[in-house]
Amino acid sequence: MQVIKNIAELCKLNFSPEQRPLGFVPTMGCLHEGHLSLVRQSREQCQTTVVSIYVNPTQFGAHEDFDNYPRTFARDCELLRQEGVDLVFAPTTQQIYPDGFSTYVIEEKLSTSLCGGFRPAHFRGVTTIVAKLFNLVKPDIAFFGEKDLQQFKVLEKMVLDLNMDITMRACPTVREKDGLAMSSRNNYLTPEQREVAPKLFYTLKQMQQRYHQGEHDAVALVQWGKSQLEETGDLRVQYLEVCSLRDLQPVTQLSNTAGKTFIAAAVYLGETRLIDNLKL
Amino acid sequence: MQVIKNIAELCKLNFSPEQRPLGFVPTMGCLHEGHLSLVRQSREQCQTTVVSIYVNPTQFGAHEDFDNYPRTFARDCELLRQEGVDLVFAPTTQQIYPDGFSTYVIEEKLSTSLCGGFRPAHFRGVTTIVAKLFNLVKPDIAFFGEKDLQQFKVLEKMVLDLNMDITMRACPTVREKDGLAMSSRNNYLTPEQREVAPKLFYTLKQMQQRYHQGEHDAVALVQWGKSQLEETGDLRVQYLEVCSLRDLQPVTQLSNTAGKTFIAAAVYLGETRLIDNLKL
Repeated sequence: MQVIKNIAELCKLNFSPEQRPLGFVPTMGCLHEGHLSLVRQSREQCQTTVVSIYVNPTQFGAHEDFDNYPRTFARDCELLRQEGVDLVFAPTTQQIYPDGFSTYVIEEKLSTSLCGGFRPAHFRGVTTIVAKLFNLVKPDIAFFGEKDLQQFKVLEKMVLDLNMDITMRACPTVREKDGLAMSSRNNYLTPEQREVAPKLFYTLKQMQQRYHQGEHDAVALVQWGKSQLEETGDLRVQYLEVCSLRDLQPVTQLSNTAGKTFIAAAVYLGETRLIDNLKL
Repeated sequence: MQVIKNIAELCKLNFSPEQRPLGFVPTMGCLHEGHLSLVRQSREQCQTTVVSIYVNPTQFGAHEDFDNYPRTFARDCELLRQEGVDLVFAPTTQQIYPDGFSTYVIEEKLSTSLCGGFRPAHFRGVTTIVAKLFNLVKPDIAFFGEKDLQQFKVLEKMVLDLNMDITMRACPTVREKDGLAMSSRNNYLTPEQREVAPKLFYTLKQMQQRYHQGEHDAVALVQWGKSQLEETGDLRVQYLEVCSLRDLQPVTQLSNTAGKTFIAAAVYLGETRLIDNLKL
């Protein structure tokens, strides 16, 4: 497995037609089974698999956890080597955002709701870094986790709108045995918080069940879910919404919407922000 | 010469290594000798030359000349055929900006001064359409005219910042015998205006001469140039500035700046807006 930290070195590589399709898994490192499931899908579907590890400063807000974001580079590389990854690209910020950097990719519709409403510059950071990585790595297929469903939808829209010649694949959320969605940020949780954390997914599942039992009033469903999440006082809900998969805008009624909507939530457990979602 | 109006059809083309380098000249049609000089440079330097013809609505302001912009498609194709162009790509707006389009490329430094100060959404439209065309055509080398020097600088910055694997070539402004920079918008001029129009370049040349004669006070130089342009009342100056080639910001003194600055101007002749520039 080759590890490249230098853009010039990466650009020297020219993947031959025999090495394609080229699969790409962009990550911020601190890899868990969710990331590895993306790597395995790429390994199955592609001749070559490239993983990037880069904690992208432009997708963090001023008071967010950029400085504390867990960095476990040596361990990440060892995990990727075991998975048979061909190339790890781990650039420095000086290379990615040199002095005077001034160009951004912005998506103005899907990125405004849900997380976008609370993290105003987040998706602009995401679309910009992913556009850059796509241009550098030139993948045929890119793999993303459905845990960050809005991120996937925004990036899929970017690829469509900017005519990028890349197939976008969303892969199912990988969960701990108790249902908690895998996330590098789970590392922030204290043992007590870790015990409470599965309540997020459990509540989404209960909401899904109530929907299947005939609750088609989305407003009532959300209100019920919020009261469940907040009943013990450990979790603080940032948002809980039922949204259309098409435009990521809230819906109010759920008759004849099967397969077209999803529940999305962001909650705080202490200082740690967790997100999850579930399709209806 | 192949003419393609359909994105799907364009994407089916796969240029072989033998057909590369692939040269690309993006245009809004109404071709003149300036465009053709870009085509000839591409033909000299590249195995294959692609020209796009698309009047891009997103780079026109609400009260600008999008509706009236001259469209001469049949004549343009005939000129390009004579030049030995391999492929003309002329998409429809429904294909380029389908309903719900929401992703833009923005450059936030070089695009703010000069034309950017008076045409607030212009460069966002330019960077977005050129990013899309680059992703569709996948050129090795792209050719632009220096008449639109700020446009070139902004696009060059986009290519650098977003790590697009494309060589950017700026080609000298082509002028009429009397010095007027070739522009599709020259077609708007009445015979009387056409007679006055060369005064723009003539004044830039005079300013350049005064600079070479030792006038290093950029403010005084600009003031002199404005008075020259406006003395007869036919031309209205939108801006006239001496700027750094590095950041496109105004400079005040011109000692030890040889080769590092340029004069840029936009003037109105009636309703017609003309721009030009000259390096110092």
